[in-house]
Amino acid sequence: MAAAAPPPPPTPTPTPPTTLPETGPVGNPVFARIRIANPSDVRHLHKLIYQLAVFERLPHLVSATESSLSSNLFNSPPFQSFTVFLLEVSPTPFPDAPVGAHPPITHVVNLDLPIADPESQEFGSGGDAVVAGFVLFFPNYSTFLGKPGFYIEDLYVRDCYRRKGFGKMLLSAVAAQAVKMGYGRVEWCVLDWNVNAIKFYEEMGAQVLQDWRICRLTGDALQAFGN
Amino acid sequence: MAAAAPPPPPTPTPTPPTTLPETGPVGNPVFARIRIANPSDVRHLHKLIYQLAVFERLPHLVSATESSLSSNLFNSPPFQSFTVFLLEVSPTPFPDAPVGAHPPITHVVNLDLPIADPESQEFGSGGDAVVAGFVLFFPNYSTFLGKPGFYIEDLYVRDCYRRKGFGKMLLSAVAAQAVKMGYGRVEWCVLDWNVNAIKFYEEMGAQVLQDWRICRLTGDALQAFGN
Repeated sequence: MAAAAPPPPPTPTPTPPTTLPETGPVGNPVFARIRIANPSDVRHLHKLIYQLAVFERLPHLVSATESSLSSNLFNSPPFQSFTVFLLEVSPTPFPDAPVGAHPPITHVVNLDLPIADPESQEFGSGGDAVVAGFVLFFPNYSTFLGKPGFYIEDLYVRDCYRRKGFGKMLLSAVAAQAVKMGYGRVEWCVLDWNVNAIKFYEEMGAQVLQDWRICRLTGDALQAFGN
Repeated sequence: MAAAAPPPPPTPTPTPPTTLPETGPVGNPVFARIRIANPSDVRHLHKLIYQLAVFERLPHLVSATESSLSSNLFNSPPFQSFTVFLLEVSPTPFPDAPVGAHPPITHVVNLDLPIADPESQEFGSGGDAVVAGFVLFFPNYSTFLGKPGFYIEDLYVRDCYRRKGFGKMLLSAVAAQAVKMGYGRVEWCVLDWNVNAIKFYEEMGAQVLQDWRICRLTGDALQAFGN
């Protein structure tokens, strides 16, 4: 629902401009929280990774299990190695976070229509909140800049939460952390057929490098070459 | 120079097969050593990075200094974060390495012709040895595999040492470390016009992913987006 229109001016003579009412959480507010994931989030994270693979038309490449994720993530302090930001949304405000080194980032989004989430049970994360997406990133290094950056391995927002600014929030949280740490770049990859994503990234100021290709050595070829 | 051919069998009657003489360093042997770089290698590393940027037709993108490299590399144990393998070559054998957690990898390459190195003074690294190349890599993470891998940011061999197997040695050293650590992938990027490199990578079993593009947020755009 849109904010009420201002009333028409009371007289035809010039008057001070009519002001709009202050916009608070009107319509359908959605409270969003971005926080560092922890081992108890692995169940949701694994489901999100699989959904992402389906979206990328690559589910046959997924061999990650909850157990492999648990054993390889969460072994280093945040931002020093593999780090996951989890996106949670709720129709009611999140409780105040305890003061800490990495407090959650919160936003309020006002939507014209409420979001119907067919997977709200499956992705429930306490109270009214559900897990709606994630970004997994880790430090990379640019020898040209002579400094680190962040590489985003995955950025994913569940279907019913797309086109509402949540993806940008997740990316922005990584960029903000990079700026805070004096890092030089944030990088990630996109499939060349995903024109919506490419447009979205270019509009936010990212360059899409057209002349680089990724090389990958994996499976038997890696074993053979490494032995 | 090739190894001497075996003498013809002494009689026309069946005899045990004639064995080739053992192939030792004949012709022009070049001794190669791959070792983990340390802060005292930064002067050479900085020059190699600049040469690589010139080769990639991107020298205008280099802002790294010896000082920035020194402050950002060498802060973590090898393989946990940014790691550099340095390639040194020498016409005489390297002294035996002290026993340690990460002993150098050595090879002997027999060449038909000696290598004329116009920069041997500039890249001298003690005794007869010179620095001939490097590879810089760090852990990345595959959510699909649910395990880490290595990403190679740079692989560089100086001009006069190319097409002799040294690039493959450096790549192989990274692959071997990945296998040793149970990692799932080794990845890197290549410029699409560098057909020689693409052929080389494909011959050693790597896939070149044609449908992914790198996105990069840097400079003012990063600052703007992160604030």
